[in-house]
Amino acid sequence: MAIKALVFDAYGTLFDVQSVAGVTDAAFPGHGEVITQIWRLKQLEYTWLRALMGRYEDFWTVTQESLAYTLEALGLAATPELVARIAEAYDALALYPEARAALEQLAPLRLAIFSNGSAAMLSRLVAQAGIDGLFEAVVSVDEIGVYKPDPRGYRHVETRLGLGRDEILFVSSNGFDKDPAIARLTPDAQRQELQGGGMIGPGQMFKALRMRPEQLGFDADVTIAALTDLVSYAGRENGASRG
Amino acid sequence: MAIKALVFDAYGTLFDVQSVAGVTDAAFPGHGEVITQIWRLKQLEYTWLRALMGRYEDFWTVTQESLAYTLEALGLAATPELVARIAEAYDALALYPEARAALEQLAPLRLAIFSNGSAAMLSRLVAQAGIDGLFEAVVSVDEIGVYKPDPRGYRHVETRLGLGRDEILFVSSNGFDKDPAIARLTPDAQRQELQGGGMIGPGQMFKALRMRPEQLGFDADVTIAALTDLVSYAGRENGASRG
Repeated sequence: MAIKALVFDAYGTLFDVQSVAGVTDAAFPGHGEVITQIWRLKQLEYTWLRALMGRYEDFWTVTQESLAYTLEALGLAATPELVARIAEAYDALALYPEARAALEQLAPLRLAIFSNGSAAMLSRLVAQAGIDGLFEAVVSVDEIGVYKPDPRGYRHVETRLGLGRDEILFVSSNGFDKDPAIARLTPDAQRQELQGGGMIGPGQMFKALRMRPEQLGFDADVTIAALTDLVSYAGRENGASRG
Repeated sequence: MAIKALVFDAYGTLFDVQSVAGVTDAAFPGHGEVITQIWRLKQLEYTWLRALMGRYEDFWTVTQESLAYTLEALGLAATPELVARIAEAYDALALYPEARAALEQLAPLRLAIFSNGSAAMLSRLVAQAGIDGLFEAVVSVDEIGVYKPDPRGYRHVETRLGLGRDEILFVSSNGFDKDPAIARLTPDAQRQELQGGGMIGPGQMFKALRMRPEQLGFDADVTIAALTDLVSYAGRENGASRG
């Protein structure tokens, strides 16, 4: 069956979560790097834990709570107001350099976002990057109160788009973002960095924990190195099914 | 209501997960520390992800898959046989130094274990530590195919022991181990270590991610620094309700 829509993960796939480092380091000079890494790891962890506990709260709450945890763990004092202000960095993440060009070239296909972010966060995020006009739909897990990789989330996207599973290519850099059609970004350079030996700091720990294919019993349909690689892949899949 | 049973988490509460470091370092000299930390972080993560995906596999599988992930991420080659052999370190974890004395002093109460470990893993683990005679029950999440902190697991323990929630004190060093009556170990010295500045390596990242109270909207009933602190607490709670 032909691919009719590309559905992108937001955080880590279209948008670089590492781009909060300027804000975290400005708030706590010299601690930006470790705050950035622990915060993101904990933010994901809290989505999984809250989902498992049946204690769903939206991603804005999780983003603040994971930051509050991080600062407490590092012995850094912060008021709730400061936590909220720093957390707003997630509304102003940088697009990955190739993302805009890739999206524009893919525009003949239907394009959507499917993200853990709340509707309000995602709305601010795509607006500040100037890419809101490129998407037919921005779908938040908040619409059904689950987090990735709960299978109900992916089914919800199919319903929202009125398409079958085989007609959607889910694009994510997160190895856990479960679907038969995930495309992962695998930066080999980062693996080289880990193999090089020497001291492993917070950034390398993050990469080791998050930037590799998972061992969870399933594989991506395709693995790409940059979003622009999707253009030829999606065109081929689309064309092949017509033949 | 009086506390009638103490139910202990195994990995990280009675048994020191850091004690696999000798095995990991012997297998990959110089890499033991980083393997140990990423492996444990990923092992927990895979329990949460598999639970969320509805793809439960037992903890022996998860322990091997998380180790395989870790070695691949670090660029270290290993056969499935070597992965399995290293993973057996989880069957031979060291008891925390005060655990045996604490358990023996608490023995007038009913004692049990509730753990993510499979029944076979837990059986080997308590036997090699020589504490199998101290527990009335060793309850595995595998009996119902969920992972912590799914609330069904804690209810299963209540059923197995024939006790109400208020009659059980769950004891765990894991901040996510959800129950109104968790007791956490909070090593303040480790917090000091993180506050001290300087390079933050894999061990400090592990402590920052795992050894602090979580920001998940609930608190432990009591927080202790060592398992032997339970003796006076459990006695007081037990006695108070009789008065």
